[in-house]
Amino acid sequence: MTPPSPRAGPEGCRRSAIETAAARIRGHVRRTPMLEDEGLNALAGRRILLKCENLQVTGSFKARGGWNSVAALCEEGRPPGILAMSSGNHAQGVARAAAAHGLPCTVVMPTDAPSAKRAATEALGAEIVAYDRASEDRDALAAALADERGLVLIPPFDHPNVIAGQGTTGLEIAEQAAGAGAGAGAEGAEIVVCAGGGGLAAGIALATEGRHRVRTAEPDGFDDMARSLAAGVRVANAEAAGSLCDAVLTPMPGAITFPILARLAGPGLVVTDGEAMHAVRHAFERLRLVVEPGGAVALAAALFRGDLPETVIVTLSGGNVDPALFARAIA
Amino acid sequence: MTPPSPRAGPEGCRRSAIETAAARIRGHVRRTPMLEDEGLNALAGRRILLKCENLQVTGSFKARGGWNSVAALCEEGRPPGILAMSSGNHAQGVARAAAAHGLPCTVVMPTDAPSAKRAATEALGAEIVAYDRASEDRDALAAALADERGLVLIPPFDHPNVIAGQGTTGLEIAEQAAGAGAGAGAEGAEIVVCAGGGGLAAGIALATEGRHRVRTAEPDGFDDMARSLAAGVRVANAEAAGSLCDAVLTPMPGAITFPILARLAGPGLVVTDGEAMHAVRHAFERLRLVVEPGGAVALAAALFRGDLPETVIVTLSGGNVDPALFARAIA
Repeated sequence: MTPPSPRAGPEGCRRSAIETAAARIRGHVRRTPMLEDEGLNALAGRRILLKCENLQVTGSFKARGGWNSVAALCEEGRPPGILAMSSGNHAQGVARAAAAHGLPCTVVMPTDAPSAKRAATEALGAEIVAYDRASEDRDALAAALADERGLVLIPPFDHPNVIAGQGTTGLEIAEQAAGAGAGAGAEGAEIVVCAGGGGLAAGIALATEGRHRVRTAEPDGFDDMARSLAAGVRVANAEAAGSLCDAVLTPMPGAITFPILARLAGPGLVVTDGEAMHAVRHAFERLRLVVEPGGAVALAAALFRGDLPETVIVTLSGGNVDPALFARAIA
Repeated sequence: MTPPSPRAGPEGCRRSAIETAAARIRGHVRRTPMLEDEGLNALAGRRILLKCENLQVTGSFKARGGWNSVAALCEEGRPPGILAMSSGNHAQGVARAAAAHGLPCTVVMPTDAPSAKRAATEALGAEIVAYDRASEDRDALAAALADERGLVLIPPFDHPNVIAGQGTTGLEIAEQAAGAGAGAGAEGAEIVVCAGGGGLAAGIALATEGRHRVRTAEPDGFDDMARSLAAGVRVANAEAAGSLCDAVLTPMPGAITFPILARLAGPGLVVTDGEAMHAVRHAFERLRLVVEPGGAVALAAALFRGDLPETVIVTLSGGNVDPALFARAIA
């Protein structure tokens, strides 16, 4: 048994792992729809196909990587419990998978996490261990819990099983783009993916290699992936917080995700918070979808950036948004 | 050529007309997804499958009947233009179909229609003729326009082509309920349908006859369908306005739709405006979907009424909601 570990090598995720993940998650997470809106196309001046991971169970693609990781662990022998560090979408994806496998789940979550995300994670049966960002050491707290309870950590993005799980989104995109239903006729289109640590982007890049090129999208000021891709080495963000796009704020690209994207992705795209909020509003008005700002950065890039081809596929990566923030976006 | 007319007989809509409609609309409107949420099931104490017509083009199922009606007219000879009387979803469905067929479209719309719905209808190329509810006679205005311009009226619900178009929703529901994807294992489940004049409910009832039973859902005080079904004859609402569920406020069931529902539907369900608003909030939080209050009455019935079986399918009929009202629902 190979327990998840942030130290797994970059060779750890291959396309075959994504196919294994697809078989594992089948029937347990949703095959999400691909949508297209004529008015949105007109507004953008290009064809935009939307892969609706905001309609995924738990409200984001994180349910895929969470399920794949927990299921893979259980195939090799049941661990005593699962540990995640997250204030949001990853917490819910892991908590749901652990509960379904009958495993206890502990989530280390900052005290200032949105109350709705905390409540949703608890409703999925996880135990929340809260810590104060200013005065407590999250990693030390997590390590102590893992030791004490024998928990296995599932990292938010930089692990082969997580990347493979998120990559199942790419298998569906490739099928939908080549199929006869919604999304048809988009073979070869670039795929714009909301990027934090790059787990979803790397997974989709591997899953669609040779058929589509991935472009990452990030908020202004937190464009570590775009700068890393330009530099050819991983560089970090200057700040840890300060964007409305909370779901995609990570310190720097992953040690496993970055080499995959350096090989397969085009130049990174960057949008402002204001553009992300406009994209949230367009998704509300034109698509009747709830998308969180961090999950709308790819749509914002497709709407407001010039450096893209005539047809693009974008991920709507998540829809777990505070009602007050959503009301502000659509006002 | 048989132009649409509110005087068409009750024998005018059969199941075969729905199959013809399905062939006409294919590729022009969306096959909408069926979704299910574990948390929503737990909350309701029953299994709820959601047919997401809020994700339909133009934001409601009205795109189906609009397309079928305009396409059917064009098969027999192109009319000089199309006329609709609507402040909302029907206007958009008809306007989109007319524009795609290269036909001018005139919509008679009250001056107090929501500005977003007016703007969306104009964006689809329709000419809006506004009238004052208090001082002008809508029907006389429409008749004068139809005469003057040779326009053909497409009624909002009480016409065989309209019912057949909306009924395509039922063909998809039956396939999805019997299929292997989302919604599987719901053969025989009752289908709760948001009902104004009953076009969608009658169409679904015909399309699923012998496989599912339809139940109508309406807002309190505008329960003309429930009272008509109980009485066995059509009875009218006492009021014309006064509910947040604007999409489903019609004076009384249709002359064509009612006999279909009297034969095929179970007892009508009634919910309060407050319950509809709660359903809007649950759809936001748990499904990341934008639903308008009138499009959420079926979900409200499934959540808050006891008189239903263990598994129900509900229509989320539309998602064209004013941002301020939506913000109020989710606050």
